[in-house]
Amino acid sequence: AGDAAAGKAKAAVCSACHGADGIAVIPGYPNLKGQNEQYLVNSLKAYKNKERTGAMAMMMQPQAAMLNDNDIANVSAYFSQMK
Amino acid sequence: AGDAAAGKAKAAVCSACHGADGIAVIPGYPNLKGQNEQYLVNSLKAYKNKERTGAMAMMMQPQAAMLNDNDIANVSAYFSQMK
Repeated sequence: AGDAAAGKAKAAVCSACHGADGIAVIPGYPNLKGQNEQYLVNSLKAYKNKERTGAMAMMMQPQAAMLNDNDIANVSAYFSQMK
Repeated sequence: AGDAAAGKAKAAVCSACHGADGIAVIPGYPNLKGQNEQYLVNSLKAYKNKERTGAMAMMMQPQAAMLNDNDIANVSAYFSQMK
């Protein structure tokens, strides 16, 4: 499992769309608060691997590409543990 | 916006993995309870359009393919309105 505190430091850019509280600022974007950690890991890797394409994936692919496996684990832990 | 009551009738199959209460039964799957309606619509259409590929997308593509636009709107309303 990831390190939520380390994830928080990496998650500032995520918050621009997904909200500082994990509730998305725009209806077309997903809330991440309390989402399953493993699902968040899988989704970020899917974007990084270009297995998700289309409009919003064009935003998420380059974001995910900037994260290594540890970053992905940590950011996922951070959002999954939000109450 | 979709019709949540109509969506409920279509959502029995979704519940097998995403939970009758919208909390996924397996950590690798996303919780859908209270998720943004428009995001759920976008995601289902992305699966239907094969814009999401990879392991779990192989499950979701054929599920989404069975839903027309009204079904997608209704199922999305159903899960987004879960408390």
